[in-house]
Amino acid sequence: MSTVIKNGTIVTADLSWKADVLIEGEKIVEIGDNLSGDEELDATGCYVMPGGIDPHTHLEMPFMGTYSSDDFESGTRAALAGGTTMVVDFALPSPDGQGLLDALQMWDNKSGKAHCDFSYHMAITWWGEQVFNEMKTVVEDRGITTFKHFMAYKGALMVQDDEMYASFQRVAELGGIALVHAENGDVVADLSQRLLAEGNTGPEGHAYSRPTQVEGEATNRAIMIADMAGVPLYVVHTSCEESHEAIRRARQQGKRVWGEPLIQHLTLDESEYFNKDWDHAARRVMSPPFRNKQHQDSLWNGLQAGSLSVVATDHCAFTTEQKRYGVGDFTKIPNGTGGLEDRLPMLWTYGVGTGRLTPEEFVAVTSTNIAKILNCYPKKGAIRVGSDADILVWDPAKEKTITAAKQESAIDYNVFEGKHVKGLPRFTLTRGHVAVYDGEMRGAEGRGKFVKREANNPT
Amino acid sequence: MSTVIKNGTIVTADLSWKADVLIEGEKIVEIGDNLSGDEELDATGCYVMPGGIDPHTHLEMPFMGTYSSDDFESGTRAALAGGTTMVVDFALPSPDGQGLLDALQMWDNKSGKAHCDFSYHMAITWWGEQVFNEMKTVVEDRGITTFKHFMAYKGALMVQDDEMYASFQRVAELGGIALVHAENGDVVADLSQRLLAEGNTGPEGHAYSRPTQVEGEATNRAIMIADMAGVPLYVVHTSCEESHEAIRRARQQGKRVWGEPLIQHLTLDESEYFNKDWDHAARRVMSPPFRNKQHQDSLWNGLQAGSLSVVATDHCAFTTEQKRYGVGDFTKIPNGTGGLEDRLPMLWTYGVGTGRLTPEEFVAVTSTNIAKILNCYPKKGAIRVGSDADILVWDPAKEKTITAAKQESAIDYNVFEGKHVKGLPRFTLTRGHVAVYDGEMRGAEGRGKFVKREANNPT
Amino acid sequence: MSTVIKNGTIVTADLSWKADVLIEGEKIVEIGDNLSGDEELDATGCYVMPGGIDPHTHLEMPFMGTYSSDDFESGTRAALAGGTTMVVDFALPSPDGQGLLDALQMWDNKSGKAHCDFSYHMAITWWGEQVFNEMKTVVEDRGITTFKHFMAYKGALMVQDDEMYASFQRVAELGGIALVHAENGDVVADLSQRLLAEGNTGPEGHAYSRPTQVEGEATNRAIMIADMAGVPLYVVHTSCEESHEAIRRARQQGKRVWGEPLIQHLTLDESEYFNKDWDHAARRVMSPPFRNKQHQDSLWNGLQAGSLSVVATDHCAFTTEQKRYGVGDFTKIPNGTGGLEDRLPMLWTYGVGTGRLTPEEFVAVTSTNIAKILNCYPKKGAIRVGSDADILVWDPAKEKTITAAKQESAIDYNVFEGKHVKGLPRFTLTRGHVAVYDGEMRGAEGRGKFVKREANNPT
Amino acid sequence: MSTVIKNGTIVTADLSWKADVLIEGEKIVEIGDNLSGDEELDATGCYVMPGGIDPHTHLEMPFMGTYSSDDFESGTRAALAGGTTMVVDFALPSPDGQGLLDALQMWDNKSGKAHCDFSYHMAITWWGEQVFNEMKTVVEDRGITTFKHFMAYKGALMVQDDEMYASFQRVAELGGIALVHAENGDVVADLSQRLLAEGNTGPEGHAYSRPTQVEGEATNRAIMIADMAGVPLYVVHTSCEESHEAIRRARQQGKRVWGEPLIQHLTLDESEYFNKDWDHAARRVMSPPFRNKQHQDSLWNGLQAGSLSVVATDHCAFTTEQKRYGVGDFTKIPNGTGGLEDRLPMLWTYGVGTGRLTPEEFVAVTSTNIAKILNCYPKKGAIRVGSDADILVWDPAKEKTITAAKQESAIDYNVFEGKHVKGLPRFTLTRGHVAVYDGEMRGAEGRGKFVKREANNPT
Ligand SMILES: [Zn+2]
Ligand SMILES: [Zn+2]
Ligand SMILES: [Zn+2]
Ligand SMILES: [Zn+2]
Ligand SMILES: [Zn+2]
Ligand SMILES: [Zn+2]
Ligand SMILES: [Zn+2]
Ligand SMILES: [Zn+2]
Repeated sequence: MSTVIKNGTIVTADLSWKADVLIEGEKIVEIGDNLSGDEELDATGCYVMPGGIDPHTHLEMPFMGTYSSDDFESGTRAALAGGTTMVVDFALPSPDGQGLLDALQMWDNKSGKAHCDFSYHMAITWWGEQVFNEMKTVVEDRGITTFKHFMAYKGALMVQDDEMYASFQRVAELGGIALVHAENGDVVADLSQRLLAEGNTGPEGHAYSRPTQVEGEATNRAIMIADMAGVPLYVVHTSCEESHEAIRRARQQGKRVWGEPLIQHLTLDESEYFNKDWDHAARRVMSPPFRNKQHQDSLWNGLQAGSLSVVATDHCAFTTEQKRYGVGDFTKIPNGTGGLEDRLPMLWTYGVGTGRLTPEEFVAVTSTNIAKILNCYPKKGAIRVGSDADILVWDPAKEKTITAAKQESAIDYNVFEGKHVKGLPRFTLTRGHVAVYDGEMRGAEGRGKFVKREANNPT
Repeated sequence: MSTVIKNGTIVTADLSWKADVLIEGEKIVEIGDNLSGDEELDATGCYVMPGGIDPHTHLEMPFMGTYSSDDFESGTRAALAGGTTMVVDFALPSPDGQGLLDALQMWDNKSGKAHCDFSYHMAITWWGEQVFNEMKTVVEDRGITTFKHFMAYKGALMVQDDEMYASFQRVAELGGIALVHAENGDVVADLSQRLLAEGNTGPEGHAYSRPTQVEGEATNRAIMIADMAGVPLYVVHTSCEESHEAIRRARQQGKRVWGEPLIQHLTLDESEYFNKDWDHAARRVMSPPFRNKQHQDSLWNGLQAGSLSVVATDHCAFTTEQKRYGVGDFTKIPNGTGGLEDRLPMLWTYGVGTGRLTPEEFVAVTSTNIAKILNCYPKKGAIRVGSDADILVWDPAKEKTITAAKQESAIDYNVFEGKHVKGLPRFTLTRGHVAVYDGEMRGAEGRGKFVKREANNPT
Repeated sequence: MSTVIKNGTIVTADLSWKADVLIEGEKIVEIGDNLSGDEELDATGCYVMPGGIDPHTHLEMPFMGTYSSDDFESGTRAALAGGTTMVVDFALPSPDGQGLLDALQMWDNKSGKAHCDFSYHMAITWWGEQVFNEMKTVVEDRGITTFKHFMAYKGALMVQDDEMYASFQRVAELGGIALVHAENGDVVADLSQRLLAEGNTGPEGHAYSRPTQVEGEATNRAIMIADMAGVPLYVVHTSCEESHEAIRRARQQGKRVWGEPLIQHLTLDESEYFNKDWDHAARRVMSPPFRNKQHQDSLWNGLQAGSLSVVATDHCAFTTEQKRYGVGDFTKIPNGTGGLEDRLPMLWTYGVGTGRLTPEEFVAVTSTNIAKILNCYPKKGAIRVGSDADILVWDPAKEKTITAAKQESAIDYNVFEGKHVKGLPRFTLTRGHVAVYDGEMRGAEGRGKFVKREANNPT
Repeated sequence: MSTVIKNGTIVTADLSWKADVLIEGEKIVEIGDNLSGDEELDATGCYVMPGGIDPHTHLEMPFMGTYSSDDFESGTRAALAGGTTMVVDFALPSPDGQGLLDALQMWDNKSGKAHCDFSYHMAITWWGEQVFNEMKTVVEDRGITTFKHFMAYKGALMVQDDEMYASFQRVAELGGIALVHAENGDVVADLSQRLLAEGNTGPEGHAYSRPTQVEGEATNRAIMIADMAGVPLYVVHTSCEESHEAIRRARQQGKRVWGEPLIQHLTLDESEYFNKDWDHAARRVMSPPFRNKQHQDSLWNGLQAGSLSVVATDHCAFTTEQKRYGVGDFTKIPNGTGGLEDRLPMLWTYGVGTGRLTPEEFVAVTSTNIAKILNCYPKKGAIRVGSDADILVWDPAKEKTITAAKQESAIDYNVFEGKHVKGLPRFTLTRGHVAVYDGEMRGAEGRGKFVKREANNPT
């Protein structure tokens, strides 16, 4: 069966032009004028773009005996509703010595429900010969080339500098890319204890415990260690000028370093934590925390100038009930917010709608850049003959007000509640299947496939 | 008649992949596997790239009663020999009041001999109502949307700040792009006079009279004026860290500013001016002059980080005899060097060959970026169905030592004399015609066409 | 007759220590413990500091057929009331060809009424052989070594780049220092006309017509020209990050460049221009205009880090009646605000009181630094045996709310109206005379003397 | 007995003027014209400056069962010969749990032989309750307020980030200043092992193992941790642009951070390590290693602009025999070079003699700045009534060629061998005693006293 997308304007990171797109099965087979197919999707007035790729999610992530509440089913359903057709989740081995392959098995068990395609990053949460050895298998057999390192979460996921350096060298050897969560965990741990000791137990304490300086420092440190190890570095959730400054200084010295601002940090600010409603504030607790307007400006400037590369969500959804584990002690509030469904409409509204980004740049930072970095381009991230038909038909005139009441995500609130967005999907296709049809969800549970990736990315 | 390029690896700014390219007449009509055509070009072991675009040439430029020695015939022949399939020349109205359209007529008279396609930039060398009015015609009727302003050459081409500001506003209104030659002309003029007065009359005086500071200052000033006028700015021949710093500071503030290093400044340095042979030094006299190694590093870093966008030549070839007008007074040495034939091999050798640039980045900075900036993409700068068949089949294994003895250019020397390059064209196609066939020139004099460009570039 | 200041803590730019100060006539003759003299001033609980020096005033400045309303009498009275014991005024030759010596004669005629010591800067408002020649006399005979250049006020005081460059070279030759009012006059003039043409005639148009970019650009340009001329550069009224960035970049390259923020720019912001009361806004019209909070932060940081050197006022007081010349056309509002009486209390309150500056740094930026730059240290700017007894006994506990109702200045308002300050003079001595005695003004009209300065400042 | 220094020009950080200096016993008692005393020292043609203070020495430092070869006797003798009248040595507790007070006892046992005054910094080489408690005694009873932390020398002196952060907080509480040796010890250790494993065992391996990046990273990290702890930070032996950049970025944000370049890094470069003579190269092994010319320029610029504050030596002298412990394994070469005798002549020659520094700035960076930072000003670092008579009479016309053959230091070579210096002491006085008299050493073994310092430095 074939599907044709008619009368739209194709927008890629490279170019915009009017053309129809013909899909056979799961692939794009033709791009041109006056195409026809079994099913027609009318894209009049719309942009036809590569589906969004969110390289930073935590679906059904284990946490204190429970799990983050969006799993691969609801999470990818939310993704598609918002125009995202691929997610990359973090496989997290337990730091008490769980093997990498063992952890992957756990993730495989969860991801079978996915509505859209997905891949994994592998986290290095401890160091030893087993980890060293299994990394090779992870890259060569499993097609996972990206390894995440936590510089924070002391006593849990955090690795020491010498472990990180050893791991970075191993990643370099295997042709992979190093990822870091960059915050100085020693300082965060100490500040947290001091704040609690002084009676600052509320959600605003979370923000106080993770100032921008600790993120800037860790980013700068990771860049140096990556440079010494000879490995490309991807800095997740870059949230502030200090971190951005370190990244652009490095790039200006010819280093291969990428920064990933989140849609939350681009559009929400620290004042949220001072809301008197504990629930309101706690629902916004994530790491790094939201920052002030000057840091927001820095992030937008980085996207415009190209010193920051990708917009993600760090989607890790906890219900209000789960958030309340931390009443009386902000360090026990589960870290994370949603965003999968809202990333593209929010970025379009605040980025393209305000003139900060062109439509082409929008595609670059939501899809194409990360597809290239992850070495799955042009299978993903492209409108191109032979590419997977992960396609977003974007209606720039469609509007709504974001509200939890109507979202796909399993949780009971939305950090963007009340934001008015203009620019929404008319259709979202995942490998040729029309999963979103003019506002209607056409479920595809279990249709998502794992995307293997090759090492030695030429980017 | 059709031509097929077989067995190569297509390299674009976006992606590399193995495929054949089929050409009908002047256009690319198909890209895929196992294509066939009337004529086959074997690209085994080669990269198939968009032909180079040199946005900065001065062919048969009037100078002191004579002309620069490469005209549109020999200049574009040299271009094709080196893999460049389009040049953009500067139409220069006489500053004593010549109209823009009148100047264009003169340029049209010269360009009929071109072997490859070409376009013009329009220079604003004086200011007045006639210029203001004709600018509209230049943009709307003639398809020339880029306007060059000289901040140096006091008493000749230089315009004052208020004139430049008025012109920038007019360019903004017309949807064009402002270009600047950025050096502080007042300071250069004074330093030149002081040097001559002190007896520094040799070619090295030229370098002393144009220190990097005067370029940095002018670049910074042009950026501010462009920002106030609301016009995108393209800074030609960015040669030093000071200028690059101003550009990247501006880009980081979200301003649309591009910098253009020349292949000469990337690979040659100021020591050339201290050669005891007057001819040797004088042949290298151009503005800005060559700089030291630290400035070279800055330019390469800018290309890598994306803060600099395009590599050009400022090709303006004077014979040794012409250069000798300046014996005894360096201010009379005609400014300019060649480069059209050597730009791509030199950049490949010193850029790709050293690991500084990927092949994709090479294509970006020699062709695709400028095609987008000049709003002639994807007609030019692309390997894409429907694009002009301006194609370069690049053999990375082919080597030579550059020498004037074997060049196409009309002049009697080459500033890259003796440089060994690895990476040369196997075939160069201009709108489908194979103008270079494995080392043999297959002339196409007069085949080049003018490339009209639309205003309101979306880039 | 001798005077002794007892029981205070001496604060200099170098050191603080407890000691008494003995004055004979006009000079400090002893510093030590348990000193006695004919008159005792009790400094218990106070700091004994060098009197403030304001290097930037316009007293009785000619303007459109009238004069700024504080003359050398009321202006220096206000200065003493606020702890300032020396002012440096700008002698402004008419740009239609008035000689420098002629202008100095006019200034001499006005300054006879001064209560405290004073000096002049010489402005270069046009260029020619007479100016060139008289500069030597100004330096060598008159002891004026600092030459101001206006890069704005097109059609009036503004000089062209080549004139400024010629003048800077002359200043270098004479061992002087170049000063600049750094704003791009061409752009300001054009923006002003555009704003008026669009009907933006109110005081807020003044701010729109002089954005920070035009100041940053001019500062950067002046620095380059000074560097080429080999002359030290003092940038008056540095008001924004762009200008500060240019200054600190230059200083980091070993250039001798100083920046002078005004107390107004440190403590007031652009929101003042949006006050609906025309008079309120117009009274704050000065050039550069007030900026936003981020620029304020930049200025404070510069004072702390030492990249900015001096805090001044640009005191140029016009009455509300005079300001109203500009009703209906903001370009006709006389530029200038008061500040002489408030500089020290405001800087102490917002600088020392907030922990941004130490008392020693306060002395440095209000007195000692500029005394060194102007080459009148340690005659001025020091608490030292042999120095002029220009002494400020500062009571850090004394408070007031600033109000025009109680000021010495001749005008009918105060831009700091309503600001509460803590830290005020108990006594102010000018060359040994106690001009302010615990809140009481003890007039000394005509006692002020001109301070001659030598060229070839070793600073 | 009194001594008078006649006919010189006093140079302080603040001012230069002609005056005589009268000394009674150990103190300066009068400064003025035509003074007389029991002994006259003729300073005609000379500058009379505060004696140099070297805040960074390692005299008789324990190392692998032996000691650095200059002890407090020969070390301070060399100091005086070169015009330095105070040294600050590092008391180093053994990291296997030696108490701070115990270590101080060892240092007291060694310092009794000193010819000139001295103080100590306390090193924190391990962390625990005993250290925490004894820090209070060290500050309050012993007058040592400066605490050094090694971020390198893994497995020996190095402390972990959380230990350093805890210690910094303790220093803040006690009103002290934190010092760091800033290199990333994890990376250095790994690079060293890799180099050895690859057969790079010679002295040049030392330089390869400590690239500028690892110093820049550690400096940046220490600054953040100090900022979080609220403690002023002094970065010893700042040797490169990366570290300097971190320091000036911090200072520009209002942080109290000082950088200390060494005279070696200012005047010697990395090419020394490539000398084919193993002894030559090994004698220059110190950490950080010498850098290239661009880093030297950065350090000089920092001294000029004020972003770097103090010039020291890190004097730690090992004989060639001791250096040879490291034949076949560069990690075993004892780290350290001499410099005490040469710091001032080298800095004068390469700094003042070249126009980079004024004489006043020379005094600031060799004496006054560090006296203020260490809170012993104006007892030390000043020519002032009441100050210790630590005085240097400096003859700018005196010349010599540096050679080990004529040095006071106990070792058999000099890293500045063959350098010609112009500017040498005529007299050096230590607390009134003329220890150097026109080239003749007048020993004062055991005359040096410990300089106690107060916490809560107001600088
Ligand atoms: Zn994270
Ligand atoms: Zn995450
Ligand atoms: Zn040019
Ligand atoms: Zn040109
Ligand atoms: Zn002004
Ligand atoms: Zn003024
Ligand atoms: Zn050290
Ligand atoms: Zn040391």
